Amino acid sequence: MRKIEHLGVAVSDLQKSNELFRKLLGKAHYKEETVEGEGVKTSFFQIGETKIELLEATKEDSPIGKFLSKKSEGIHHIAFDVEDIESEVRRLKDAGFEILNEVPKIGADNKLVVFLHPKSTNGVLVELCQERV
Amino acid sequence: MRKIEHLGVAVSDLQKSNELFRKLLGKAHYKEETVEGEGVKTSFFQIGETKIELLEATKEDSPIGKFLSKKSEGIHHIAFDVEDIESEVRRLKDAGFEILNEVPKIGADNKLVVFLHPKSTNGVLVELCQERV
Repeated sequence: MRKIEHLGVAVSDLQKSNELFRKLLGKAHYKEETVEGEGVKTSFFQIGETKIELLEATKEDSPIGKFLSKKSEGIHHIAFDVEDIESEVRRLKDAGFEILNEVPKIGADNKLVVFLHPKSTNGVLVELCQERV
Repeated sequence: MRKIEHLGVAVSDLQKSNELFRKLLGKAHYKEETVEGEGVKTSFFQIGETKIELLEATKEDSPIGKFLSKKSEGIHHIAFDVEDIESEVRRLKDAGFEILNEVPKIGADNKLVVFLHPKSTNGVLVELCQERV
């Protein structure tokens, strides 16, 4: 766990929220990216060494679509930057954390990602991410 | 907005959560602090340039006590480091954000803090904080 790589925020309308976060942070998002497999359209804002990732569902039955219908807009997950995702998964599993996908999957922003179940992490959905080489 | 100063996480039992986050992050918290005025006991973990602040209510009718009884454990707020909190409050108010306390108050970790209402920020409770000199 080297740093917070990004914070994921679930939003209903990416275009509106891009404008809102531009006003809040005083600068615009620097890219948008759709991840078909996750049913999500994302945008990224740089803030210091970390990023804010806005997430709009492209399908109602996607993880973000379900989150929005069950809860509401708001912080969705914290992602930590890791050097070696497989050894981190082993370390955290041995420490008793519940891993949602033991085999890393391809996420946004050229990353390999693994999620931990929020019930083992004080209600916080934790993502591990490793830059793909 | 220079960086994410910290992420606040509401927890039911600070001692248990200190141990859980020690396992998650691979290092222990470096301090604990009680903020009587906010009815909260906090602990801090450093991660890169930012911090994770765990928040346990010391009173049921405190903001964290109410959050825990209404929702559950989880991410409570994002705090941004600002150079001049008063000018940031003016800028954000002019941009249409709802400010919860226009007069900065004294928060944990030797900071002046102002909160924005989550209804104006996509459901995200935003804190501005400026180091006290």
